Amino acid sequence: MKIIVDAFGGDNAPLEIIRGCIDAKNELGVDIMLTGNKEAIEKCAEDNSLDISSFQIKNADTVFKMTDTPSEIVKSKRGTSLGVGLDLLAASEGDAFISAGSTGAILVGGTLIIKRIKGIKRPALAAVMPSNDKPFILVDTGANCECNSDMLCQFAILGKLYMEKILGVENPRVALANIGTEETKGTPLAVETYKRLKDNGDINFIGNIEARSIPFGEADVIVSDGFSGNMIIKMYEGAAKAISNQVKDIFKKNILTKLSYLGVKSGMDDFKERMNYKKYGGAPLVGVRKPVFKAHGSSDAYAIKNTIAQAVKFTQSGYIDMVENSVRGNEDERI
Amino acid sequence: MKIIVDAFGGDNAPLEIIRGCIDAKNELGVDIMLTGNKEAIEKCAEDNSLDISSFQIKNADTVFKMTDTPSEIVKSKRGTSLGVGLDLLAASEGDAFISAGSTGAILVGGTLIIKRIKGIKRPALAAVMPSNDKPFILVDTGANCECNSDMLCQFAILGKLYMEKILGVENPRVALANIGTEETKGTPLAVETYKRLKDNGDINFIGNIEARSIPFGEADVIVSDGFSGNMIIKMYEGAAKAISNQVKDIFKKNILTKLSYLGVKSGMDDFKERMNYKKYGGAPLVGVRKPVFKAHGSSDAYAIKNTIAQAVKFTQSGYIDMVENSVRGNEDERI
Repeated sequence: MKIIVDAFGGDNAPLEIIRGCIDAKNELGVDIMLTGNKEAIEKCAEDNSLDISSFQIKNADTVFKMTDTPSEIVKSKRGTSLGVGLDLLAASEGDAFISAGSTGAILVGGTLIIKRIKGIKRPALAAVMPSNDKPFILVDTGANCECNSDMLCQFAILGKLYMEKILGVENPRVALANIGTEETKGTPLAVETYKRLKDNGDINFIGNIEARSIPFGEADVIVSDGFSGNMIIKMYEGAAKAISNQVKDIFKKNILTKLSYLGVKSGMDDFKERMNYKKYGGAPLVGVRKPVFKAHGSSDAYAIKNTIAQAVKFTQSGYIDMVENSVRGNEDERI
Repeated sequence: MKIIVDAFGGDNAPLEIIRGCIDAKNELGVDIMLTGNKEAIEKCAEDNSLDISSFQIKNADTVFKMTDTPSEIVKSKRGTSLGVGLDLLAASEGDAFISAGSTGAILVGGTLIIKRIKGIKRPALAAVMPSNDKPFILVDTGANCECNSDMLCQFAILGKLYMEKILGVENPRVALANIGTEETKGTPLAVETYKRLKDNGDINFIGNIEARSIPFGEADVIVSDGFSGNMIIKMYEGAAKAISNQVKDIFKKNILTKLSYLGVKSGMDDFKERMNYKKYGGAPLVGVRKPVFKAHGSSDAYAIKNTIAQAVKFTQSGYIDMVENSVRGNEDERI
């Protein structure tokens, strides 16, 4: 299996990207194809005594900047490390593509260069996150700010199959993010979607979920429009970080609190590991014909390695064919 | 000053409501008018040896149930403790009204019985929440799932004046909840609202805010539609609770971890107090002609007392007149 990786996406490129790829190669035995300025990649590896002799490098002289307009990825910015990576995936030169670069460009490029799975209205960005119980997936985290109920119902299928096939969750519990648990709550869109999900025999729909229940792992798949989904996921991330900072400060206060830390260190380490969303890798762009992952902009080697691991599982799972069949089945029902 | 309190709203009614009212009377010197079944209130007070001889009680034989349809508050459920309380406020028998009962009924009743401030399109539910820095207000937390930019711009004014006049924050920083900080991010509604808030000289608009920055206190006023706002506020609440539970479990593990807790107890207590949203009282229904507060359904005496304290400040602040003037000023500008 060969994973194409944008060597110039994210805040820690190219060094952490290269490091993550080396770890993935060693641990998972995958082949790596890097995209980006060949000279710069080789120099970075050399400066840091990293052996990348087994990697293929596909040259791309420029980088897609965060300030560039996402739609440029299909035309004027096609020659960037991100554009070249997408084209290589489209041409089946590798099995999956990963970038920690511009979310907008990955979304536009994924949709227009890799293209949608037949029957899928709009691809979505998913995120796998930890909870107090098991991890859950949220679809969509920001690709589609405005949705209709066709899209939300497809997000449910995309999420359900992801949990089933890639994370091995049996009969995942699907819930709709809403302002209350009652069937009548929320926007007309929420009410309509509730009804359709309830009536869909392929989905283990457990009803609406309020945002406050999400961190307790009360559902495996959370369906949301991209705007609200973005609020949910980023607030989760922000609240966890803000609270962790406060707890850290408490332990740093004086000798006594520092000593106290030693007593709970192993528990705190377990907790940190459990809440570390980086272990689940990046966000899959679900609904496109080949595996595309958006790694977090702040990805380090560990996050990149885990994103590659997730891409490997994705590629082996047969997910895309199953989505196509499932969407076709659901379309047939509606005719 | 006289505060009208629904004795039968919320999970802990009437006992905790009565207790909160007694504390408020003792600490703040306010007069209390309770609504609800007179006999039941008096029996509860007697059973718990509570002196409510100074309270006025306005009898209401029934209670607005959580399963009742909110719109019934204006007709068939007008005689409930909630409906009677709203009518008393409308008739100026008291200065403010507080209930821990049905949010929907408070919203509908507030809008139709207390009525909107002249010029206000739609009242909104606001919430004052703690952050790692100062508290912030979020408008709207769920009253209006679907909004237009007129409404969002008014939410900005409602929130700004609340922080200024009731919480004493000078020149509050107003931000629009969005999926990215750039001016072009989000829905067409977000883009339009960004432009209008930026152009409004009365508002210290600092731009878009991503949900992950909210817990760090990067804005004093967060403007949001009610659907996304509900996700933000409930995810904040849920994440804080889930993480606190996990941290608690770490300390409970064994003798060593329990001893460790003693070393950080004072820090943990400070932290808990800082993050305790109950100290800010309930959610004000902003945009109506008199002060109406929705206390949390799980309110205890402490939360009720603090909601009364917030209602007192609100009543003394002249907030409602200022909102009316400010909205008129902004309307004039648009003509």
